[in-house]
Amino acid sequence: MQDLRLCCVGDSFTAGAGDETALGWPGRVAAAAWPRGVAVTAYNLGVRRDTSADIRRRAEAEVLARLLATGGDAHAVVFCFGANDATFEDGLPRVPPEASRDNAVALLGWSAARWPTLLLGPPPVLHDAAQDARVAALGPVLAAVAAALEVPFLPLHGPLSASHAWRAGAARGDGVHPDAAGYAAMAALVEAWPAWRRLSGG
Amino acid sequence: MQDLRLCCVGDSFTAGAGDETALGWPGRVAAAAWPRGVAVTAYNLGVRRDTSADIRRRAEAEVLARLLATGGDAHAVVFCFGANDATFEDGLPRVPPEASRDNAVALLGWSAARWPTLLLGPPPVLHDAAQDARVAALGPVLAAVAAALEVPFLPLHGPLSASHAWRAGAARGDGVHPDAAGYAAMAALVEAWPAWRRLSGG
Repeated sequence: MQDLRLCCVGDSFTAGAGDETALGWPGRVAAAAWPRGVAVTAYNLGVRRDTSADIRRRAEAEVLARLLATGGDAHAVVFCFGANDATFEDGLPRVPPEASRDNAVALLGWSAARWPTLLLGPPPVLHDAAQDARVAALGPVLAAVAAALEVPFLPLHGPLSASHAWRAGAARGDGVHPDAAGYAAMAALVEAWPAWRRLSGG
Repeated sequence: MQDLRLCCVGDSFTAGAGDETALGWPGRVAAAAWPRGVAVTAYNLGVRRDTSADIRRRAEAEVLARLLATGGDAHAVVFCFGANDATFEDGLPRVPPEASRDNAVALLGWSAARWPTLLLGPPPVLHDAAQDARVAALGPVLAAVAAALEVPFLPLHGPLSASHAWRAGAARGDGVHPDAAGYAAMAALVEAWPAWRRLSGG
């Protein structure tokens, strides 16, 4: 077995909020890699309510504490952020798009200089059409940062907006976070992504 | 549903190293609480190779980043450390027992002043009888610290040493970390523990 140490850095969609199986997408893609001969230790560093600015404050210390230790044949980092940047508070986004872009440059640049690094675009937030439109608009901004840094990028907003499992799960839950079936749909997109399969057994 | 935000702070036995289902004990006890009406967000803060000294360096920042955010009806912290303290390097333990005790005082004292806090004793390390004896001896030291701070303590070394699932899983794996069945045995001990059930639905 190959020993892959993986940090999954993000917000509630990485923490798996609402998932009654407690797996989220990181647990699902980690478990799926074992039969391919890759023993994944998935460090879930998703924190509810975190914006890209919050993640930027903690990512370096948290990832270094996990990936610098002795052991492991391979190491990688997957980021997923942006949905909370687009939340309006007092009439302004918690993080404006230009700051989201700066945070993405800092996070991806730092990580990609050290380990294979991937970026997932933010999933939809279906409870609020205006916020969701801002999240959708942030996807291409983040994709451009990723492209400039040669970090593979996976858009999730479109596919999950069209996913019955995601929409139904969010509707049954708090309106934003899906249930296990919704996270399974998110994990299936990651599983089908060549950039992830190159890391986790083809 | 009650919304419980839980930090599980420890080493590889909390990260779930070797668990092909990627759940570890935190994922299992979190999922088991949902049918009892408690929606657990389990932040898994287990890091492979971490001693109590390593955990002391990162716990405050990592737990505050997760439990200070808005949201959640209840918050709690469960610690589990000690097995790596007892590893010999260059003829000395990585952390001597008196320092393990000091680290436990600092970690539990800080956490218990803020949130309901529990301590799991270190599981056995079956690949090395001398190290395992040191781990066994550390259990009562940690239990005494917990008792002095009124933190509930669950001994795991005895029950897991006697668990066929744990022993067989470790033997099939790297000698130390069990497979999914072993982590299920560990989770079952936590599940049966009144201190945990008071937090997670009786």
